Amino acid sequence: MIDRLLKPLAAGFPGALDLEDDAGLIACPPDRELVIAKDAIVAGVHFLPDDPADLVAGKLLRVNLSDLAAMGAEPLAYLTVIARPPAIGIDWLERFTNGLARDQARFGLHLMGGDTVSTTGPLVLTLTIIGTVPAGRAIRRRGARAGDIVLVSGTLGDAAQGLRVLKGLAASEDEALRLLDRYRTPEPRVGLGRALRGLATAMIDVSDGLLADLGHILQASDVGAELEAEALPISREAAALPGALEAALAGGDDYELLLTASPAALGDVAQAAASAGTPVTEIGRITQARGLLVRDRDGRPIETARRGWRHF
Amino acid sequence: MIDRLLKPLAAGFPGALDLEDDAGLIACPPDRELVIAKDAIVAGVHFLPDDPADLVAGKLLRVNLSDLAAMGAEPLAYLTVIARPPAIGIDWLERFTNGLARDQARFGLHLMGGDTVSTTGPLVLTLTIIGTVPAGRAIRRRGARAGDIVLVSGTLGDAAQGLRVLKGLAASEDEALRLLDRYRTPEPRVGLGRALRGLATAMIDVSDGLLADLGHILQASDVGAELEAEALPISREAAALPGALEAALAGGDDYELLLTASPAALGDVAQAAASAGTPVTEIGRITQARGLLVRDRDGRPIETARRGWRHF
Repeated sequence: MIDRLLKPLAAGFPGALDLEDDAGLIACPPDRELVIAKDAIVAGVHFLPDDPADLVAGKLLRVNLSDLAAMGAEPLAYLTVIARPPAIGIDWLERFTNGLARDQARFGLHLMGGDTVSTTGPLVLTLTIIGTVPAGRAIRRRGARAGDIVLVSGTLGDAAQGLRVLKGLAASEDEALRLLDRYRTPEPRVGLGRALRGLATAMIDVSDGLLADLGHILQASDVGAELEAEALPISREAAALPGALEAALAGGDDYELLLTASPAALGDVAQAAASAGTPVTEIGRITQARGLLVRDRDGRPIETARRGWRHF
Repeated sequence: MIDRLLKPLAAGFPGALDLEDDAGLIACPPDRELVIAKDAIVAGVHFLPDDPADLVAGKLLRVNLSDLAAMGAEPLAYLTVIARPPAIGIDWLERFTNGLARDQARFGLHLMGGDTVSTTGPLVLTLTIIGTVPAGRAIRRRGARAGDIVLVSGTLGDAAQGLRVLKGLAASEDEALRLLDRYRTPEPRVGLGRALRGLATAMIDVSDGLLADLGHILQASDVGAELEAEALPISREAAALPGALEAALAGGDDYELLLTASPAALGDVAQAAASAGTPVTEIGRITQARGLLVRDRDGRPIETARRGWRHF
């Protein structure tokens, strides 16, 4: 299994040592820091047991790539652990590694190690991702300042609406396909994250939901925020289904970048977004006063529980 | 949970960013490479569900430290994923993190990130360990040459005998305690591994069993080996129970270092062992002819299946 399915994923990265040794090596690029994140997904919790294996692989890799993107880092390599029940056979693993192969080629990183173990429970997949960033240039959550503008990339709520469609919500075929795709195959905003180094004062990726993730920035930065509900970027497909505003506010799994920037930097942010080919939208501003307020089109506060996405 | 149990484990490592961000940072030490390994353990497969939580934590960390030791690397930091079923509550996690705290202090490394997720199956624990080694000095599996001597640290078969005791094999209390301790709390040979840089031509840790792990060195190095059964270091406690030779040959989980060195380097190897306070024993030699032969005291080959440890 290792020879046939995993070693090809390591080819081209000398530090993987052909997956032959107890560990892999990384020669540190000069003047750069390494950025390292680790995430896990569990069948029945974070993905559906009958989701296509190649898409599960893609989601696992993309979720971790999104963590790098949120720090402004560029991908380098990854390690993975597959804890598999007996029902997950070689065919499934082959489709899974095909998915990894496709996405690692697309995003420019390689497998450099890992482990495969047995479990009596559901499939558990963990991935450790390694990226690099120029020393001292990683974007943190803690830099937001009162007066900064809050922006978000892409559109919000698509993944949550896609999950609702998966669970039976009626939708047209076009809408269903596009929303499902957003749920199953998030687009990590790696190019945009890199372009925002030196521009974003704080950044995070939207994995738990806009309110929850903005909450993380506010807590780390010791500030508050006001959002304009009308300004939230919601796709035509998400808006066509009921609950789009709630999905945009509280739905998770969009993996868009949520950032703050000083008003003076907005022109450069727009240029970075254009160069990365990923739109960003102003959705509110950072306040000295703590708390997170969402206003409707008339400026009245909307009642919201500041809560993240509850996985199914 | 993160604030109370995990953040204290990250204190003292600036790159952990107080576990506040999407990823952690590592500033690469000049003239060194990073060494990265990832392992997983599953309740009911690699440890018993009622094993003490602090010892499970210790084993998880030590198994990974042993991977660093086998490369001649020094520990720096780790990330961990805890996929936990509902039955694993905060009390268990507190004892688990206490175990991590104790061993990370002992071995000089810090938590720098990770994830906690829910699962409907058994507890799955994965750990990514990061160490450093002077650039180009990592010890590989592929350097063994015909004529090299095969050596192993400590004693072999204790962990396998300990597991048999756990499963009901009769033993005196003293033997039982010592063997169980070896099974539950392996001693990663970090100091010895570091001291062997430039001396060992190939190295691996004994996790699957002597025959299986020596097999990995032989395959990577394209050579064979002959071992002397009489020379295997077997503890008094392991020898007191039936099956000690089989445990030493095929039992896993000892996490001793298995290495090869040229005859000319044996004096330096002995000195390294003395300075690290870990005995090493010559157990055979590398041959041009492929294959792995074990001889008894009269020089006759012993029938062995070259197999690793089968987990319970």
